[in-house]
Amino acid sequence: MPKISQKGVQMPASPIRKLTPFADKAKLEGKKVYHLNIGQPDIETPEGMLSAIKGIDFKVWAYTPSEGTLSYRKKLTGYYNKIGYNISPENIIVTTGGSEAITISMMACLDPGDEVIIPEPFYANYNGFANQNDIIVKPILSYIDNGFALPPIADFEKLITPKTKAIIICNPNNPTGYLYSKVELEALKELALKYDLYIFADEAYREFCYDGRLFISPMHLSGLDENVIVMDTVSKRYSACGARLGCLITKNKAVIAAALKFAQARLSPGMVEQIAGEAAVDTPDEYFEAVNKEYTLRRDTLVNALNKMDGVYCPNPGGAFYVVAKLPIDNADKFCQWMLEDFSYKNQTVMMAPATGFYSTPDAGLNEVRMAYVLNNDDLNEAMICLAEALKIYPGKR
Amino acid sequence: MPKISQKGVQMPASPIRKLTPFADKAKLEGKKVYHLNIGQPDIETPEGMLSAIKGIDFKVWAYTPSEGTLSYRKKLTGYYNKIGYNISPENIIVTTGGSEAITISMMACLDPGDEVIIPEPFYANYNGFANQNDIIVKPILSYIDNGFALPPIADFEKLITPKTKAIIICNPNNPTGYLYSKVELEALKELALKYDLYIFADEAYREFCYDGRLFISPMHLSGLDENVIVMDTVSKRYSACGARLGCLITKNKAVIAAALKFAQARLSPGMVEQIAGEAAVDTPDEYFEAVNKEYTLRRDTLVNALNKMDGVYCPNPGGAFYVVAKLPIDNADKFCQWMLEDFSYKNQTVMMAPATGFYSTPDAGLNEVRMAYVLNNDDLNEAMICLAEALKIYPGKR
Repeated sequence: MPKISQKGVQMPASPIRKLTPFADKAKLEGKKVYHLNIGQPDIETPEGMLSAIKGIDFKVWAYTPSEGTLSYRKKLTGYYNKIGYNISPENIIVTTGGSEAITISMMACLDPGDEVIIPEPFYANYNGFANQNDIIVKPILSYIDNGFALPPIADFEKLITPKTKAIIICNPNNPTGYLYSKVELEALKELALKYDLYIFADEAYREFCYDGRLFISPMHLSGLDENVIVMDTVSKRYSACGARLGCLITKNKAVIAAALKFAQARLSPGMVEQIAGEAAVDTPDEYFEAVNKEYTLRRDTLVNALNKMDGVYCPNPGGAFYVVAKLPIDNADKFCQWMLEDFSYKNQTVMMAPATGFYSTPDAGLNEVRMAYVLNNDDLNEAMICLAEALKIYPGKR
Repeated sequence: MPKISQKGVQMPASPIRKLTPFADKAKLEGKKVYHLNIGQPDIETPEGMLSAIKGIDFKVWAYTPSEGTLSYRKKLTGYYNKIGYNISPENIIVTTGGSEAITISMMACLDPGDEVIIPEPFYANYNGFANQNDIIVKPILSYIDNGFALPPIADFEKLITPKTKAIIICNPNNPTGYLYSKVELEALKELALKYDLYIFADEAYREFCYDGRLFISPMHLSGLDENVIVMDTVSKRYSACGARLGCLITKNKAVIAAALKFAQARLSPGMVEQIAGEAAVDTPDEYFEAVNKEYTLRRDTLVNALNKMDGVYCPNPGGAFYVVAKLPIDNADKFCQWMLEDFSYKNQTVMMAPATGFYSTPDAGLNEVRMAYVLNNDDLNEAMICLAEALKIYPGKR
């Protein structure tokens, strides 16, 4: 029998999915499970996008240009220039979800054995994409005590080798919700220029900034045109995760040319999605105002409830729809499994993502969990009551 | 300024696209260009697929399972079992186009430095996907004189090293249209079993077999369950290239498990596409009968016209919608460019794909071109008149 690849053996399984069998079992046993574990929002997709799908009028479902249709890239250019990116359609390559924006950026910029620095905890699939491309991830710890702010630049410099080619920042951050400040981004800029590094800016959650905080992108900083690649997606912005529509944006022409070759190999992004994506750009401001109001309410519910629990600490994040909380427990993997397997309160329990899955450093985040506030506020309140009860009786309490 | 990757430098540009600027210029000059260069069919997508898109009724455009929805995989299972594959939904992973079926199969089975043998001429993007994954392509020549039949097994054996992990066959073949026989596939089977090799079967053109010829897949051969991975797509079957919906199929459980991890990293295939894909399986037989009748007519038009031209030879292919023809010319790249730049007949010209782009062996296919019969029969007749006139006066005639 032929053997699978070493790459296939080493490919990390999703840390969130490990708990799925336990959740399935809990449901079979009749428990209600509050899913705070995944980033699939419950918010409705804008009506304009859905109407665009229903209104298609082509006869042949054809390839589009590999870089995306000019029409969609023009529309996107309007969106990005409204927020000050100062780009043209030639700076955009439309991708199959944010995932492909990440993999194409990695392939265009990094070779096997090259290193990328990522503040941790970080989006776990960066590990998978790095493994796919034989790229080495160098994690750099950020800490819950300062809300997961950017680690000191001196800590980055300690990790830099001749193989270091890029830094990934996810802003606002998944899993921490942290929103990077202009000062932090300026510090990253100096570092990138000093060592000739790419800054890969994963901005999937750009639209979700709270309490009047301003979103700043490395695209807003001058003198960084050759270094910045924005990796974007419509998934969270328009609650359209199943569209698999994203893009990469850079003013670096050599990167665009290389990325285009990878895009050409896979021929085309989806055609219907680009039609819907064009309509999405016209989503009225009221949609985002309502969504942000809703997310702010939910975040406040979670953060307030968590910080009232004995021994729990949860920073108040500036963006995205996640929080990472520190719990008085021995081991988040064990605790999250115990919640599903052995615990219920009023026949209800909560599924959370152990933060360990978002760290590469061994034993980091052992007492932290990530929660996505993708349920309505009443359900979140119920989930928090459940969690508080669970922490009272968890055998591994610390 | 940070440098792009070596991988990005080495990534092959599409051989077909090199000529695009010359075609654009010809059109600007007012010439009519018959496009026989690309595999985008003009055939209409089945009505049922388009209705399914228009009929979507969800409110949240959500992720689907990474392996595809159970509903779609069940429906696909019905389709594949009707043609004798004897599979279950667990044997299928839904992918973003056939392209992703190829890349995931490669990543799950081959490591950097591993080798894959591919009969050439072959689909040029295999080179790109191999480059992406640092996999070495070992081409093995097939010849126009016997219609591009499978090369002798002894020729394969000469190429096998400890690094050889797989053979790719595209059946019916792009670019040659060759349909592999049961005898040829049985020979490949013995080879795969002897050396523990995977057989990657790219069956994008399965539906298009002519003159009553029977399609045989390695999936039909007994004793090969652990070795065969079928890479499929709806692109050509339903003229739905822009759907980006494909799948990989294998009975090898270790491969499915590894492939699933790569699929999980990119989260989900498209949701709307899977809804349309389900509807596609119910496309009535009459659709395929009409399409195959049309393609047979077109193939006959091309093959007959070509073989009547002085010094031209075109085998009569058993499937797909391509022919490769040998022309009395010095260099197909020069000739195809000359056709666009310097030639017109009644203010018309023809764009073809130089076959050199489908060979890895240097100088192979120098006097061959690929033509896709994706235009209506009248246009094909006009295009052949053009080509005949061009060959009369081409300065590099041999």
